[in-house]
Amino acid sequence: MTHSIIDFLGSQRQHISRVLSSFADTKAAELALVNQWGQDVLDRLIEFTSRGKMIRGALVVLGDSLVGDSSMEPPRNDVLRAAAALELVQSFLLIHDDIMDQDFTRRGKPSIFAQYAEIPRMKTDGRFTPEDAENGELSRRFGEAMGICAGDIAMLLAFELLAGLETDAPTQAAILGMCAREIGWVGVAQMNDVYHGSTSHPAAEEEILNLYRYKTGRYTFSLPLLVGSTLCGLGESDRMKLSSFGEHLGTLFQIKDDDLGIWGDEVETGKPVGSDIAADKQTLHRLYLLQSLNDSERARVKGLFGTEGGGVVSEIRELLSANGVQERIFGIVRQHAEVARDLVRSLNSVNARGKELLTDLVEYNLTRRA
Amino acid sequence: MTHSIIDFLGSQRQHISRVLSSFADTKAAELALVNQWGQDVLDRLIEFTSRGKMIRGALVVLGDSLVGDSSMEPPRNDVLRAAAALELVQSFLLIHDDIMDQDFTRRGKPSIFAQYAEIPRMKTDGRFTPEDAENGELSRRFGEAMGICAGDIAMLLAFELLAGLETDAPTQAAILGMCAREIGWVGVAQMNDVYHGSTSHPAAEEEILNLYRYKTGRYTFSLPLLVGSTLCGLGESDRMKLSSFGEHLGTLFQIKDDDLGIWGDEVETGKPVGSDIAADKQTLHRLYLLQSLNDSERARVKGLFGTEGGGVVSEIRELLSANGVQERIFGIVRQHAEVARDLVRSLNSVNARGKELLTDLVEYNLTRRA
Repeated sequence: MTHSIIDFLGSQRQHISRVLSSFADTKAAELALVNQWGQDVLDRLIEFTSRGKMIRGALVVLGDSLVGDSSMEPPRNDVLRAAAALELVQSFLLIHDDIMDQDFTRRGKPSIFAQYAEIPRMKTDGRFTPEDAENGELSRRFGEAMGICAGDIAMLLAFELLAGLETDAPTQAAILGMCAREIGWVGVAQMNDVYHGSTSHPAAEEEILNLYRYKTGRYTFSLPLLVGSTLCGLGESDRMKLSSFGEHLGTLFQIKDDDLGIWGDEVETGKPVGSDIAADKQTLHRLYLLQSLNDSERARVKGLFGTEGGGVVSEIRELLSANGVQERIFGIVRQHAEVARDLVRSLNSVNARGKELLTDLVEYNLTRRA
Repeated sequence: MTHSIIDFLGSQRQHISRVLSSFADTKAAELALVNQWGQDVLDRLIEFTSRGKMIRGALVVLGDSLVGDSSMEPPRNDVLRAAAALELVQSFLLIHDDIMDQDFTRRGKPSIFAQYAEIPRMKTDGRFTPEDAENGELSRRFGEAMGICAGDIAMLLAFELLAGLETDAPTQAAILGMCAREIGWVGVAQMNDVYHGSTSHPAAEEEILNLYRYKTGRYTFSLPLLVGSTLCGLGESDRMKLSSFGEHLGTLFQIKDDDLGIWGDEVETGKPVGSDIAADKQTLHRLYLLQSLNDSERARVKGLFGTEGGGVVSEIRELLSANGVQERIFGIVRQHAEVARDLVRSLNSVNARGKELLTDLVEYNLTRRA
């Protein structure tokens, strides 16, 4: 089954990358004036950002194409600047998240803080001494501190791009306010994610769904679609529907993601099956399964989460099926898909191609295997 | 000697606090919707920000009062919103800096990441277990991760405030762009600060001066004055002069700060004399002193930096005087003061009271003992 939405989103990446690179070119000389880290951090941020799939940026372009004649190719510069800004925001969040989660690899290469931690270790700068190179704590602290700064700078570059939009004033202020507000919500959602990762206390259903709604739904889908559709002047009631559409799609997307982490094909997903189980990720699957068991079974199965190995994955798969959890999860996914499709159908001023692409986004997420 | 500038700056704090609180009131319900950390982080950020001296915010008000009849009391709401935004930016930077520098105390209370690190330790939330409470690494990681998020959220709240300014569109875009750009430079300056704190390699004179210029001069003085004077519509050539004025004043301020760290009265400064020496802070004092010594003396004196104790402070004071370093430093301070005064004198459209306050800011910094 081919999906036109995948072609659409994929084809935006080159345009967004181009705008990102040209923005970096305008910043290079200025940042180099501050000190030698100016060029260094800019290069790393652009390289890191360019390696992303740029789904959020592409959704800004989609949002902008929902009104009128949608065949603008390449998209307008303002739209691409906003798209590039959201990709820098994504880099900012990933860079800080990787420090919090101690993820040393991201997008197939060392994460940003891990890159900086290499500098004392490898003495690539000419100032760190052989003793420094042996000092693991120094290297860790240096990497994390530089990573915090790099993330901060990515966010500030994003806002500089948004402040430079050439659209009319109320539109620009609306976009800036919306981005600041919604990304702030992601920060608050991330705090709860950190909290759940730090305690063994089970997250309640509402907490898991709220995390999916804010960290995936609103941030990955609603915000980019709102930014794009605000740029093209879509009316407020349609924008409210898109906002809600993003929440349902994001929740569906995230549950599907959790599902692929258990049932997916490692070759197709590129992610080790069972890694969510081994990390004891607080998913709906885990919550519903534990709820469906009696006390003694619950204690035993709880111990399986947080454990590695193919045997554990098989056992959990069987338990999910046998206890009706898989059926329950599918039901929830279908409900969100249904609401999302209805919202698309009810859009008043969106062109036919836009509705088709948005619906296809739902279908793709329902059936994707990676 | 009394300084009218001190009265002026001090009297703005209440106005800025009021606007900050009312902004927090508008955000509370919305952030509480995300999860329980929304209200938590908002309360901590407002409490933390309100305990600052709010110099930067007050300088925004000063910048706005430079044109026309300057007796606007209380200042316009837009001006106070921009001032409150810069104070939230200051909180963001301090919160992240404290993680990088492992400073557990700030503004007389536990720093933000240290506050969060207490939650697992004290089990104040009801979810952390007695084993968690004993787990120092868990507490450290939790505190730092929550602190990174809190800093990020402070910055996003600042940009949300700026996006809500009611001034005309070009002014708003100019202020947003200026803030994003200049705070990005602070991030790059901070990277070099982290670097210098991590290696024993001496910083070059140019590196020290660049840090003073960006982290203190442009950020603490130029940016607030530019934001304020952009809001009141001061012309571009005067704004360029104010920008340069801020760099000279900031450099003077920072060198004076280093000087008080060696020569100051502990009771007056509230900061332990010799703490910069003990921390081996890379100051001009240290650089010039080491440069003025022969090789064997240099090796010995280099060892004094990074050492605590009153004897060390006395010896370094004597060496600074005997080797003409103190004279050289005074000369540099006087030069920056001279240039700063000239810049004020040359302002074309600034009212007499504004020029007086700006000049007084120079004089105050020359003579301050705390």
